[in-house]
Amino acid sequence: MSELALQAEKLDAADELASLRDRFVLDTASGHAADAAVVYLDGNSLGALPAQVPDRVADVVRRQWGELRIRSWEESGWWTAPERIGDRIAPLVGAAAGQIVVGDSTSVNVFKALVAAVRMAGEDRTEILVDATTFPTDGYIAESAARMTGRTLRRVTPSEVPAALGDRTAAVLLNHVDYRTGRLHDLPSLTAAVHAAGALAVWDLCHSAGALEVGLDEHGVDLAVGCTYKYLNGGPGAPAYLYVREELQPRFDSPLPGWNSHTDPFGMSPSYAPAPGAPRGRVGTPDILSMLALEAALNVWDGVRVSAVRAKSLALTDFFLRCVRAYTEPGRVECVTPERHEERGSQIALRCPDAGEVMGRLIARGVVGDFRHPDVLRFGFTPLYVGFAETERAARILGEELA
Amino acid sequence: MSELALQAEKLDAADELASLRDRFVLDTASGHAADAAVVYLDGNSLGALPAQVPDRVADVVRRQWGELRIRSWEESGWWTAPERIGDRIAPLVGAAAGQIVVGDSTSVNVFKALVAAVRMAGEDRTEILVDATTFPTDGYIAESAARMTGRTLRRVTPSEVPAALGDRTAAVLLNHVDYRTGRLHDLPSLTAAVHAAGALAVWDLCHSAGALEVGLDEHGVDLAVGCTYKYLNGGPGAPAYLYVREELQPRFDSPLPGWNSHTDPFGMSPSYAPAPGAPRGRVGTPDILSMLALEAALNVWDGVRVSAVRAKSLALTDFFLRCVRAYTEPGRVECVTPERHEERGSQIALRCPDAGEVMGRLIARGVVGDFRHPDVLRFGFTPLYVGFAETERAARILGEELA
Repeated sequence: MSELALQAEKLDAADELASLRDRFVLDTASGHAADAAVVYLDGNSLGALPAQVPDRVADVVRRQWGELRIRSWEESGWWTAPERIGDRIAPLVGAAAGQIVVGDSTSVNVFKALVAAVRMAGEDRTEILVDATTFPTDGYIAESAARMTGRTLRRVTPSEVPAALGDRTAAVLLNHVDYRTGRLHDLPSLTAAVHAAGALAVWDLCHSAGALEVGLDEHGVDLAVGCTYKYLNGGPGAPAYLYVREELQPRFDSPLPGWNSHTDPFGMSPSYAPAPGAPRGRVGTPDILSMLALEAALNVWDGVRVSAVRAKSLALTDFFLRCVRAYTEPGRVECVTPERHEERGSQIALRCPDAGEVMGRLIARGVVGDFRHPDVLRFGFTPLYVGFAETERAARILGEELA
Repeated sequence: MSELALQAEKLDAADELASLRDRFVLDTASGHAADAAVVYLDGNSLGALPAQVPDRVADVVRRQWGELRIRSWEESGWWTAPERIGDRIAPLVGAAAGQIVVGDSTSVNVFKALVAAVRMAGEDRTEILVDATTFPTDGYIAESAARMTGRTLRRVTPSEVPAALGDRTAAVLLNHVDYRTGRLHDLPSLTAAVHAAGALAVWDLCHSAGALEVGLDEHGVDLAVGCTYKYLNGGPGAPAYLYVREELQPRFDSPLPGWNSHTDPFGMSPSYAPAPGAPRGRVGTPDILSMLALEAALNVWDGVRVSAVRAKSLALTDFFLRCVRAYTEPGRVECVTPERHEERGSQIALRCPDAGEVMGRLIARGVVGDFRHPDVLRFGFTPLYVGFAETERAARILGEELA
């Protein structure tokens, strides 16, 4: 056994989170070579299935829908699910209860958050700044938000934000962790800079929530959005969430004021009066199956501290990088994820010209990461279920495929 | 046995759609008096559970998500589900393939459709007309669409639309069937009137699709939206759909241009280039669990003609009205649903001052309709699973409770 493999065994033995893996359905060989367990390093794209979800979904379908039918809107708690599940996500992103509502896609929530932020900023603030390095949907939606609120849009890198801020800045939309490089941006200092300019900070937490501490309340973030199907393991296309800081909620003026956000939704009034609190961010009827699957998925967090998750995440990515360096010829890949812990999310992105083919071969051998156009191999590390021995194995197979 | 009960038996025996009831999970007594089968007349709010759905959902959760995980985006057809399922809905609303995409809530789709319609109408058309009698969310969203496109909004009843149209009219948003009264509006002639004024017609099909023929293509409707959890039985909060007439698709300019609507979504380009065809109406990552439950639910339509469904719907509501008149003291309730078949959807709405209490007692006796503020009893008739004998029984119990 190699030195690194021995090291991995020790790290696994000392891992206080190791038993959490049992809260997930893993180690099935379906579709892969039956003699090799899969190393799933794509939880930053789609989290693995939490073990409690299948029974919960079956109950929602068969009993709540099939037997109680319409009565479940009250009796099974369907109606209040968006804010109830929001309160389950809240502690994972450092938010007190009553500020997060679940529903719609991330893109739709970016639109709500950015338009609302611009409206709060007032008429004389005419520019929106958006992270030029972000996942493209944020940029596309920001462009639409700018067009529809009569603002201009300027694309800057996160490091350029402080210099770009001014008294015309309405809002800044930033990604906490870059989806491609895995770079973690400095949320506290960027938020403070945005506030110093009198603008509002909107953060996209898709690639950070569930992997590291966010501290929304502590750092005074104004609005935030995120998906739930990555590190929160909510299932494919699980509904996203919207955070609106409590003191801003009365001024949250939604561009999508659907009937679910009305203060008296069953009054069926022809005139709109927004609900108080987080439900103001709701729009239409919530997609109950996906939403209650997410609720069951969040049970994996019972008794788990995000700080411990973060510590393991850094240990995993540190160890993966050590193994890659040991097993791969120097210069064959370039690591585009920052070395410094303060700048690293929970993934490692390696650049090489033949990344697409390499990833295809890795997946065929049971090492599941993903490929990001044009030349990036992405490996996501979900500390709740990824261990050190499989991390070593993934790096070893990667080294073989790169040789 | 009463005359009407005998009549019901004959109608059930002659009903060519009667066997379709077996495609649903019904006749479970859970939560209701165990000695009485439930008469479910709320399929216009939440359709009953189709029998194929539980196994399909279990497979999506356990195998597609739990085992194949990220590979399911391709291998299980997740990525193309929105347009594939749209093509399953298309024949039910009289649309050729390639014009419907599934996803998001009805409210979000109303926003997409109305903003896109206004943009197609051009700058010099400054007014949006909206059905003043419609389900409130349409009015709220129309107000937001007007505000965000710099148009004015005018609320008119559907019968006032022809007189209200003019060369300033950009678009008209109408409900095909009124959610409260069950009145069916004249889609062909209203659409023609809208077109004669050079405006665009946007129809909300929530209360008609799956219950009667819509004829989107035949009548030249421009854009349409609808939910799938009523007569399409897709499940609680199942994703809604958006129809954009083929010739208008190149001009469809979405206010929610999320990455799923990009012509090369995995190219991750910072600049937006819309996809051709129906996928242009997509926004973010589709909610797969809810969406594939809907896909399985649509199997109940195999071999079913919508014209037969419509004929049975009218027979059911005719028969229900006959029974209500026979069993209820004259003047005790007022029927607010039109008598004329051309003006009737698939529900009967009865007005009485104590409607809220009456519905409570009906539900306690296993007759499940719903109450609409302030004084309306709603009874929805889903021809795929509602029969005549239970319709007679519902009317009889209603008569007893009203006495």
